[in-house]
Amino acid sequence: MHRMVAMVLASSAIAAGSPNQPAPAPSPAAGFINTLMPQPSHLSTQEGRLILSPSFAAITDHYRDARLDAAIARSLDRIKRKTGLPISISNSPASASGSLVVSVDGPGELIQSIDEDESYSLDVSPSVARLHAATVVGAMRGLETLQQLVQADATGYFLPAVSIRDTPRFRWRGLMIDCGRHFMPVETIKRTLDGMAAVKLNVFHWHLSEDQGFRMESRAFPRLTALGSDGLFYSQEQAREIVACAHERGIRVVPEFDMPGHTTAWFVGYPDLASTPGPFNIEREFGVFDPVMDPTRESTYKFLDTFIGEMAALFPDRFLHIGGDENNGVEWKANPRIQAFMREHNLQDTAALQNYFNQRLLKILEKHGKHMIGWDEVLIPDLPRDVIVQSWRGFDSLAAGAKNGYRSILSAGYYLNHMSPSEDHYKVDPLPQASGLTPEQEARILGGEACMWNEQTTPRNIDSRIWPRAAAIAERLWSPREVTNVDDMYRRLTVESLRLEALGLTHISQEAVSLRMLAGTREIDPLLVLASVLEPVTFDDREHLQHPNQLTQFNQLIDALPPDPPSRHDFALLVSAYLQDPATHLAQGDELTGEFKDWIAAEPGILRLMATSPTLALAEARAQQLTTLGAIGLEAVSYLASRLPAATGWKAQKLALLDEADRPQALVRFTVIKPLRDLVNAVPEPPNK
Amino acid sequence: MHRMVAMVLASSAIAAGSPNQPAPAPSPAAGFINTLMPQPSHLSTQEGRLILSPSFAAITDHYRDARLDAAIARSLDRIKRKTGLPISISNSPASASGSLVVSVDGPGELIQSIDEDESYSLDVSPSVARLHAATVVGAMRGLETLQQLVQADATGYFLPAVSIRDTPRFRWRGLMIDCGRHFMPVETIKRTLDGMAAVKLNVFHWHLSEDQGFRMESRAFPRLTALGSDGLFYSQEQAREIVACAHERGIRVVPEFDMPGHTTAWFVGYPDLASTPGPFNIEREFGVFDPVMDPTRESTYKFLDTFIGEMAALFPDRFLHIGGDENNGVEWKANPRIQAFMREHNLQDTAALQNYFNQRLLKILEKHGKHMIGWDEVLIPDLPRDVIVQSWRGFDSLAAGAKNGYRSILSAGYYLNHMSPSEDHYKVDPLPQASGLTPEQEARILGGEACMWNEQTTPRNIDSRIWPRAAAIAERLWSPREVTNVDDMYRRLTVESLRLEALGLTHISQEAVSLRMLAGTREIDPLLVLASVLEPVTFDDREHLQHPNQLTQFNQLIDALPPDPPSRHDFALLVSAYLQDPATHLAQGDELTGEFKDWIAAEPGILRLMATSPTLALAEARAQQLTTLGAIGLEAVSYLASRLPAATGWKAQKLALLDEADRPQALVRFTVIKPLRDLVNAVPEPPNK
Repeated sequence: MHRMVAMVLASSAIAAGSPNQPAPAPSPAAGFINTLMPQPSHLSTQEGRLILSPSFAAITDHYRDARLDAAIARSLDRIKRKTGLPISISNSPASASGSLVVSVDGPGELIQSIDEDESYSLDVSPSVARLHAATVVGAMRGLETLQQLVQADATGYFLPAVSIRDTPRFRWRGLMIDCGRHFMPVETIKRTLDGMAAVKLNVFHWHLSEDQGFRMESRAFPRLTALGSDGLFYSQEQAREIVACAHERGIRVVPEFDMPGHTTAWFVGYPDLASTPGPFNIEREFGVFDPVMDPTRESTYKFLDTFIGEMAALFPDRFLHIGGDENNGVEWKANPRIQAFMREHNLQDTAALQNYFNQRLLKILEKHGKHMIGWDEVLIPDLPRDVIVQSWRGFDSLAAGAKNGYRSILSAGYYLNHMSPSEDHYKVDPLPQASGLTPEQEARILGGEACMWNEQTTPRNIDSRIWPRAAAIAERLWSPREVTNVDDMYRRLTVESLRLEALGLTHISQEAVSLRMLAGTREIDPLLVLASVLEPVTFDDREHLQHPNQLTQFNQLIDALPPDPPSRHDFALLVSAYLQDPATHLAQGDELTGEFKDWIAAEPGILRLMATSPTLALAEARAQQLTTLGAIGLEAVSYLASRLPAATGWKAQKLALLDEADRPQALVRFTVIKPLRDLVNAVPEPPNK
Repeated sequence: MHRMVAMVLASSAIAAGSPNQPAPAPSPAAGFINTLMPQPSHLSTQEGRLILSPSFAAITDHYRDARLDAAIARSLDRIKRKTGLPISISNSPASASGSLVVSVDGPGELIQSIDEDESYSLDVSPSVARLHAATVVGAMRGLETLQQLVQADATGYFLPAVSIRDTPRFRWRGLMIDCGRHFMPVETIKRTLDGMAAVKLNVFHWHLSEDQGFRMESRAFPRLTALGSDGLFYSQEQAREIVACAHERGIRVVPEFDMPGHTTAWFVGYPDLASTPGPFNIEREFGVFDPVMDPTRESTYKFLDTFIGEMAALFPDRFLHIGGDENNGVEWKANPRIQAFMREHNLQDTAALQNYFNQRLLKILEKHGKHMIGWDEVLIPDLPRDVIVQSWRGFDSLAAGAKNGYRSILSAGYYLNHMSPSEDHYKVDPLPQASGLTPEQEARILGGEACMWNEQTTPRNIDSRIWPRAAAIAERLWSPREVTNVDDMYRRLTVESLRLEALGLTHISQEAVSLRMLAGTREIDPLLVLASVLEPVTFDDREHLQHPNQLTQFNQLIDALPPDPPSRHDFALLVSAYLQDPATHLAQGDELTGEFKDWIAAEPGILRLMATSPTLALAEARAQQLTTLGAIGLEAVSYLASRLPAATGWKAQKLALLDEADRPQALVRFTVIKPLRDLVNAVPEPPNK
């Protein structure tokens, strides 16, 4: 898609400005292009710029500690790497002129809570940049904004003069990663934390146990990982490393141990916890399974008391996530002893029994100083009001909870594994304008979490499944509700994506790495043309078409491709601009023609690569369809340019071909079908004879 | 360079065969394309292939242990990832048919030494693959060869039928990494070990201390890292991880603590070790400095006894490298007390004093069960015969040592940081045909080590500085002396480079990552055209032109570019093929013309990118020269195609322009100048009027 991007970006940059500000539109003359992500709550621009020179330094003029110093050092390192300037990190420069002054009132909370003050102000004038925050975490948020302000032109690197007052809209802005179904190495988690900090996310929700694997070392119960992890787990030392790395970035770590269901992997080493005798094996399929803890035995609670005590000491956060989802109740219904227990305790159904379990669990959590958070299913009558509910069901569930006094966070609409475009997530608001809630109830909606469920993800491609789309969700959770311009979001997301790559994330580079592996050669140019207009089918489509399990090799074309690649939005924008007036928008017509010709030209080269790569050859039909799409595009542009009506039957035939190409096939789908339909439909019908 | 590669590869693949075998040339009909690297000592091919099917498994039919099982599992995982086959790892399949049978006689040495048997045989028939080795390490070498045999065509994945008997030519095949001048993270070291194992290198020489940093935790002397490392060091836990990871791959770890010079970083925390009172700071410049240990004080040896005792326990290898290089003697000459000591002990010069130091050190090493290895400088009269000498001076030094009874390894000619092409390293033989040595003396030349000195390298680009060039050195050290065909080496290196990328190395992908960072956009196609025909200037040129130090930002174009990129050899081959007969080699002429047009077309786009990237703009002259080179190429091809003589003065003018473009500038150099000179020189002179 490289042909068209320069034009698209140039035009949208001019149109962009600051999408949510009543402030005067930024003057391009002043050099300010707003690429901030998430958008700050208040921003105004001034004339002028602070030129970044070798004497640029950071001065802490009030509170400082090791965490703040480290954050400043990381920030300056990134500026140095970007600009090449030999910036020295000094807290006692001769003068503040031309430098950054960081004024922090105090350290903030010892253990970061949802009440931590994350706000900051950042004022850049031609002579100095001043960052002020009440807490170190607030200063970190401001330092990330500072990073995003660094710009360059032919004269050098600079910070545009701006004044920013920023505070998050929601207090809980999380990313959940499922390390149960596919284990993710420590390095992967660490670079993800860097990415989270860059877009001001503040909760890493670490899903650590699943039917398919138990991933956290327990010294009290070593068989949890010895038998339930395939050797793929985090040592307690590594967990401390992750927690420390997150703390350094102002990110809370909320561990999840999913109970009473999704627990097959626990039972491999500790079958006595289960509701059936076992023996158990690590589950290799994905889905909802029957094995579930036995909530009627005291030994279960004794185990959990010891286990949670151990984990409570390891994870300092005030919350511990107990999962609680998708228990199908099958084993409870089938077990006479459990049925007898339910009658004895007057528990009407398995939901009531799970509530009994949760109540017992809650007491254990309280004993170890933890608050409980769980998925939707935990929300049943009698649940204590201090439990937080995480909703995978949607806003209605969230609102119902809020009305009943429960605090909650939204994850429905934020499932990154669904392979939806960023804009779909972006449009989901945890607290829509007409929520029907009172202000007090609204205050109970704490925020949301992007969820990365890893049935179909591996360490190799998880970055491209999280980034840059999680940045769009991060903006939804941080920025004012009114920041909703999708085109502007995509414009800034393109820039943010590169900044995330500079942090060490591999979401861009991995595509070519995987394509080279697939093709067995470095010469993958034709394949890149095809790949640029393809994306993975949805999670559900892959589940139905392939039914992958934990032993599946995720090495196909789909696994190389990022969801929502730049082509999707860029191509739609280009076609839309062209169709405003095909007769005069000749430049866009040329762009399109060039693109279509590239598609057609790519096929022979792709087929040559497929001839020696049976795995790649699974997508052969897609290479042929690329030529078809290119031909349709060329014909449509040709009709539109000539203003001639289409031949009889042309439109129906082409739309049928587009429908055919739109079907999921080879586990991938084209990103350009809808705009191509628009192009075809824009061609005038032949006169009725 | 993408235009021409398909043709070059196709032609060289046909020409390739097995460069060192008297065996019948492999039949392309049988599907065997030899991409083995390093080449085995004996290989013969048969008709047929073993088709890789889902029932393919590995069976150990004799000795097995955890290390062998893990090696087999890693190998099968890679085959699974490549082929997508759901291969189950089973040691009790129904039958060996269609599978791999691994027969290992025994575990090999508990602590791998230079005497470890690394040989193996591998026989692939259409019905079974049989790997035999005396030791687990031998089996690992064979498993790597097995990986390299996996091929595919339109019908699927297969192993060609071959018979291989393989044993290394040299016993010491190392890679040294300087982690003193720039620290390299544990993850970087680990993936490097994967790469080493892939090309059968067997010694990781870990250079852990330098004037610029002391990188290994000492519990006895914590100030070594607390004050001498900028916080960048390996914990003992991490060292054990590295040693274990290497052991799993049949790689020895030889730690180096360079003494008595190159020790400034030690003195920051322990100034009493030094020959001057201090205080000391971590050295930021690179070069040879005066600070040196005081060899006259007993306290120095007491310190080293404790320190080496601690390190000896941490590193199981029988050798410990004591450096010993580049002590300039300045401080010893200037210190009256040291001068008095020398007189007292009848030590004629500082070399004699260093020998005294080495003798004392040797006793300490012996006490802790370690043999000594050191750089050239340790080789002076009276050196015990069991010390191994590592030569950065060259074969003459090696031969002199061998004649005097010393065992030695070669590093001269293998300095990866010099930015030389692979072929230059490939041509350096530790034991040339006419060595002038007796067989007994020859046997003392144990092998060699590639050296990665990291003055100008960062974690971001070290992969492309090591790989794939180290694979060419690995072949020199493993394969028979007669394997010397440079074109064939490059053909196989191209394939090996991709296999190394599939292991997780970033030597290919990092270029585009860095160029995107530099350009600040994903749309870097024109920049890629320029980058493809550029490479870093030599180490010495950069040293003279830029004089970088440890605080320099290595973020320029040079830092993105790999040394010896594919363009260098491919373009030379293409021009050479064309010049055989320009009038009839029209396809090559078209390739060249297309390439030259691409160069010319790239300039405007590059200049646009440079307009917003001051760092990139430092190379602006190179973009303009690219157009000049393209124009010269077009004119030359046009003359050659038309068989017309050049205009008067044309040749001199173009050669002058090529000379101008050949000068180091912006720290980068063109890879295509010599073939372009050949093109220009091939144009007939105008008739003398």
